[in-house]
Amino acid sequence: MNNSFGSIFKITSFGESHGPAVGVVIDGCPADIVIDADKIQLDLNRRKPGQSVITTARNEADNFEVLSGIFAGKTTGAPITIIIKNKDARSKDYSHIADKYRPSHADYTYQKKYSNRDYRGGGRSSARITAGWVAAGAIAKQMIAQLGIRSMAYVSQVGNLSINKLYSTSALRVEEENELRCPDQEAAAKMIALIKEVKKAGDTIGGVVTGIISGVPVGLGEPVFNKLHAQLGKAMLNINAVKGFEYGSGFDGVKLRGSEHNDLFETTKQGLQTKTNFSGGIQGGISNGQDIYYRVAFKPVATIMTDQASVDKEGNPIIITGKGRHDPCVVPRAVPIVEAMGALVIADFVLMNQSTKLGSL
Amino acid sequence: MNNSFGSIFKITSFGESHGPAVGVVIDGCPADIVIDADKIQLDLNRRKPGQSVITTARNEADNFEVLSGIFAGKTTGAPITIIIKNKDARSKDYSHIADKYRPSHADYTYQKKYSNRDYRGGGRSSARITAGWVAAGAIAKQMIAQLGIRSMAYVSQVGNLSINKLYSTSALRVEEENELRCPDQEAAAKMIALIKEVKKAGDTIGGVVTGIISGVPVGLGEPVFNKLHAQLGKAMLNINAVKGFEYGSGFDGVKLRGSEHNDLFETTKQGLQTKTNFSGGIQGGISNGQDIYYRVAFKPVATIMTDQASVDKEGNPIIITGKGRHDPCVVPRAVPIVEAMGALVIADFVLMNQSTKLGSL
Amino acid sequence: MNNSFGSIFKITSFGESHGPAVGVVIDGCPADIVIDADKIQLDLNRRKPGQSVITTARNEADNFEVLSGIFAGKTTGAPITIIIKNKDARSKDYSHIADKYRPSHADYTYQKKYSNRDYRGGGRSSARITAGWVAAGAIAKQMIAQLGIRSMAYVSQVGNLSINKLYSTSALRVEEENELRCPDQEAAAKMIALIKEVKKAGDTIGGVVTGIISGVPVGLGEPVFNKLHAQLGKAMLNINAVKGFEYGSGFDGVKLRGSEHNDLFETTKQGLQTKTNFSGGIQGGISNGQDIYYRVAFKPVATIMTDQASVDKEGNPIIITGKGRHDPCVVPRAVPIVEAMGALVIADFVLMNQSTKLGSL
Amino acid sequence: MNNSFGSIFKITSFGESHGPAVGVVIDGCPADIVIDADKIQLDLNRRKPGQSVITTARNEADNFEVLSGIFAGKTTGAPITIIIKNKDARSKDYSHIADKYRPSHADYTYQKKYSNRDYRGGGRSSARITAGWVAAGAIAKQMIAQLGIRSMAYVSQVGNLSINKLYSTSALRVEEENELRCPDQEAAAKMIALIKEVKKAGDTIGGVVTGIISGVPVGLGEPVFNKLHAQLGKAMLNINAVKGFEYGSGFDGVKLRGSEHNDLFETTKQGLQTKTNFSGGIQGGISNGQDIYYRVAFKPVATIMTDQASVDKEGNPIIITGKGRHDPCVVPRAVPIVEAMGALVIADFVLMNQSTKLGSL
Repeated sequence: MNNSFGSIFKITSFGESHGPAVGVVIDGCPADIVIDADKIQLDLNRRKPGQSVITTARNEADNFEVLSGIFAGKTTGAPITIIIKNKDARSKDYSHIADKYRPSHADYTYQKKYSNRDYRGGGRSSARITAGWVAAGAIAKQMIAQLGIRSMAYVSQVGNLSINKLYSTSALRVEEENELRCPDQEAAAKMIALIKEVKKAGDTIGGVVTGIISGVPVGLGEPVFNKLHAQLGKAMLNINAVKGFEYGSGFDGVKLRGSEHNDLFETTKQGLQTKTNFSGGIQGGISNGQDIYYRVAFKPVATIMTDQASVDKEGNPIIITGKGRHDPCVVPRAVPIVEAMGALVIADFVLMNQSTKLGSL
Repeated sequence: MNNSFGSIFKITSFGESHGPAVGVVIDGCPADIVIDADKIQLDLNRRKPGQSVITTARNEADNFEVLSGIFAGKTTGAPITIIIKNKDARSKDYSHIADKYRPSHADYTYQKKYSNRDYRGGGRSSARITAGWVAAGAIAKQMIAQLGIRSMAYVSQVGNLSINKLYSTSALRVEEENELRCPDQEAAAKMIALIKEVKKAGDTIGGVVTGIISGVPVGLGEPVFNKLHAQLGKAMLNINAVKGFEYGSGFDGVKLRGSEHNDLFETTKQGLQTKTNFSGGIQGGISNGQDIYYRVAFKPVATIMTDQASVDKEGNPIIITGKGRHDPCVVPRAVPIVEAMGALVIADFVLMNQSTKLGSL
Repeated sequence: MNNSFGSIFKITSFGESHGPAVGVVIDGCPADIVIDADKIQLDLNRRKPGQSVITTARNEADNFEVLSGIFAGKTTGAPITIIIKNKDARSKDYSHIADKYRPSHADYTYQKKYSNRDYRGGGRSSARITAGWVAAGAIAKQMIAQLGIRSMAYVSQVGNLSINKLYSTSALRVEEENELRCPDQEAAAKMIALIKEVKKAGDTIGGVVTGIISGVPVGLGEPVFNKLHAQLGKAMLNINAVKGFEYGSGFDGVKLRGSEHNDLFETTKQGLQTKTNFSGGIQGGISNGQDIYYRVAFKPVATIMTDQASVDKEGNPIIITGKGRHDPCVVPRAVPIVEAMGALVIADFVLMNQSTKLGSL
Repeated sequence: MNNSFGSIFKITSFGESHGPAVGVVIDGCPADIVIDADKIQLDLNRRKPGQSVITTARNEADNFEVLSGIFAGKTTGAPITIIIKNKDARSKDYSHIADKYRPSHADYTYQKKYSNRDYRGGGRSSARITAGWVAAGAIAKQMIAQLGIRSMAYVSQVGNLSINKLYSTSALRVEEENELRCPDQEAAAKMIALIKEVKKAGDTIGGVVTGIISGVPVGLGEPVFNKLHAQLGKAMLNINAVKGFEYGSGFDGVKLRGSEHNDLFETTKQGLQTKTNFSGGIQGGISNGQDIYYRVAFKPVATIMTDQASVDKEGNPIIITGKGRHDPCVVPRAVPIVEAMGALVIADFVLMNQSTKLGSL
């Protein structure tokens, strides 16, 4: 099983929802990067459950511990290990599903593949493990910030309610203005109302998170099997509940003609720029210096509060009764995860790019 | 630069459009697989230029040579190297763009990243290098066919014309019924007319290819950073001109509620099945035995026959005049590439899965 | 920085000598392996300091905690994380060397490479991090034991005192008969006397550990860049203080003629065997079913109790005064490390070998 | 099967002795390195058969073709593919051993592992495939030469005849003074006489190649599982017929005391140096700026001209009769292979080291 992501700036994820801890090892972070621990906690807080009425009511502090790799406030070049202990475990909540397959969950596929499955709270398939990714992403963000690069994200769609305007990173604030993390206050109010309505019905709904990465220099990404957008897409598609990824013009770009879609170059005071950005900041798999933007589709959460017909391990028909505390819509808590994965991809390509030319000694 | 794809069944791509040859090394193919060379040529023919009036008029035979790894008609477990020599080079066609940046091409990003750029026909950024992938995919297809798995694809959208019906692999034929590779004859006729119209205008247009993989057993894919759909997405996003990837319900699934979107299990004569397949055959990153289906968005080809304003290496304004022979729409020739990449991903996961449990000696 | 080892059964090492913990993540261990925690502790005890008068007097319990990957006493296929907390830290012992370069230590090279160096107790360069490897090796040993494979080691040389007889794994006992872990009691007594004499002089001495792996089936290893002995050699050369590796006839085999050195095949009741085993159980990089044996050379420990001339970070001449508690000879404590690394290599090749042929579904 | 070596500067080897070609793909070579093709041919000539009376009488030109990755005389950053066609195939020479297991060859292990074995001339197990490595090494040498680094080697032992003096790279010349590639003319004469005597008897003999790498800056190598000497050892152990690797003081260093073995630092006009170099230029896995030296043990060639008892695929006793043209001792032709592998390792660590610190954009 491969639980690592990245080639130079590489993270290894571990942990289960109801084991002692979830965590991450970050290998390949350059030495001598000053780390502000508060920024790690800030992003963990943005991801944690129990933040607001539109997220799950589970309340977990998600405090982290650094086990290795940071000395005197700076990275040493050695692997950085961060763990987040699991406190609010309530294993008893899950005993009723040990032998049952919840629809559109990983229960069935895990059981068939591995036989010995930690079913408590989803075990390894729980979105809780993304806490480690977010912690690692907070390190990556601090590294790329030294180069003026920012990875940010926001909610751009809930159900069939969407905003079309693209926001730049300078227009977004980490101290979000609403609990949905949608920068359009008016649209946000409607989307929040929709989520509350869905929640009241014991149901769930999907959404879209838009990611934007600014300050990226020309040259990140590689031409063939390591195209910047391909690795970015893989990063996003690995997030729980994601069903699609598009960048730049995406699926809508299909409808355009080449003469409309081509991004014409022009020389400006800021150097070479493109007049439009259908390319989403990437041409031939390599960043061209324009903003990188992309959209990530999240399905409706599979856990609903109404009864569903299913089967147990023996194939007998059963009824799954919704229990526990779950998110009616994942997108508000997915925003810091999308940002983290975006930062991890960029951090890795920054380091990869440092070997494109032979340096001096 | 990373030109390899896959972890056990791994391919390494090499070659430039106007160098001596393009090719591929396939490492990790199991020993003792019977290889039918005709099937490799068949797929290369489906990808090659000059097939029909809706593709480029360049005519290349794309015959392949096997340099290693096959003995007595079967794989030996050693790396399989396949090359396709470049014949119709016409390097002179490209001298006029050596110092120019074509809009929405990789010229600018390659130049800035690598300095020494083979500009002839796109060099390393040319879609010609996918000939090697198709050859490798034809090997992967033969391997997975032994397990009853098929990777197929078809055109489902050109511009704003699309078909909504999903086709199963058993309804598709490799001996395609039309040059577009769209199984709906009526829709195909309209799409072909659109491409001809666009071509006549010296313009280009985008499209969507739908991929479908059938016969996949339960258990392929890995839970965290190697989710089956994430690697499939990465594979597709690495294909030239791709802007988006979605699987199962994709971006449209966002609009549904959990109670609509969940795929309910049922016990049938064929074993455990799901009543619907919004999951696209994958749950928690692991195949669940249902058909895997996905959609891949291709932008309009960047090379158009009309004049475009651009800049040269010094940033001076220039005019790019369309020349040469190019595709008005990539999707017909992209179909075998999508199939090949799908087969390569599955072949790799099949082998990875063989180490999930400890075998006997 | 790459802190991972292995390709399918892969470990990632983390931690510093005087940080909160050292540890390991084991990724790729097959699901459903029963794990006996006592066997992990047993090997950790064999490696820990303070075992006997011929090892360092530091006393650390080296108790481990499992953070993930084991459920209901068996592996789940998810990453297994094991940490060993650092208790007897005594950071003050090391403040005197923060700016000094100890001869033949990693102080100088780390400082120049990383700038921000955790100098306490060697930090990341401490042999203490091998505790994580030993824990991982204890998992690997339990996995390969299911196939009848054993990885064992013993001390075969201290200074210029050596034993020439080869011991089979069946002649070795994990409950070692002497604190040196040398199976020849008479030779052991002399070697122990030598170590005591060296220790009394405030000096240190080198030694050789012989490793033996039995029960290996034919077919582990790969022909070209993954030869079984090459990966085994890399594993051993990564152990702190190792200066050389040889397998089978090794450096002495150089002196023989082909007619003396060739291992002739013969058909026996146990199947095909070789009459001699100069090949050390490996031919063409692949195991041939005979015992695998190899020798690992350890230099004398660099920390000595007598004064040494050296320089500080500014290049000024200084005197390094021996302090603290150190091993006069590493080989007794190196035995479980050699065994662990041997087991990890074999576990990885066992899993790799499971993809040599295409299995059925 | 893994046929790649290296992590950033990575080569993939392919080909069989009697297939169409052997070759290599070099991925990750930085862009913009000027390549002198003559230097590639020079090293291929030093490795090729038929050079002198002490090597095999087979005569192969070993001319190479570059299929990709070099444009206008410089690397482009794209994969460089080099093939060497097989001309003097004489497949008929080998039909007599198709079903026979030659002692101490890879016949038996390949057959059992892969079933479908290319037995002609050893197929994939032939040392002929190292021609590709030598070509790749010649590229690596040209890259590291830009930094003042040289990887050289020479014969230091044949049978029981050895030279003890260490030679620096400045004392060695690529235009070797004798066909043995031993810099001590007097010793060389005796060694050559020994090889001729052994050859006359239809027998073979082992030897040792000493490698030396000069001009290496402080900081190459990584602390834990990527120690410079561990990767160097793996590189050498992957060369056909190698049985052992040691660096610096090696196996002899075991006999020394710490007070004798420690390399004391001193400040000189050339900066920090060590008074002795038992460390072999590497401390804690990282280069310390002193010369890196190491020794590689080669067993006697397994193919001898006298009859040997063996078995066939069915286990029946047979006689293997020596035929064909083979080397009585591999070390003269192994010298360029050792140099090449040394250069490849250093090139890779040079590039890895470029990501140790975060650069500016």
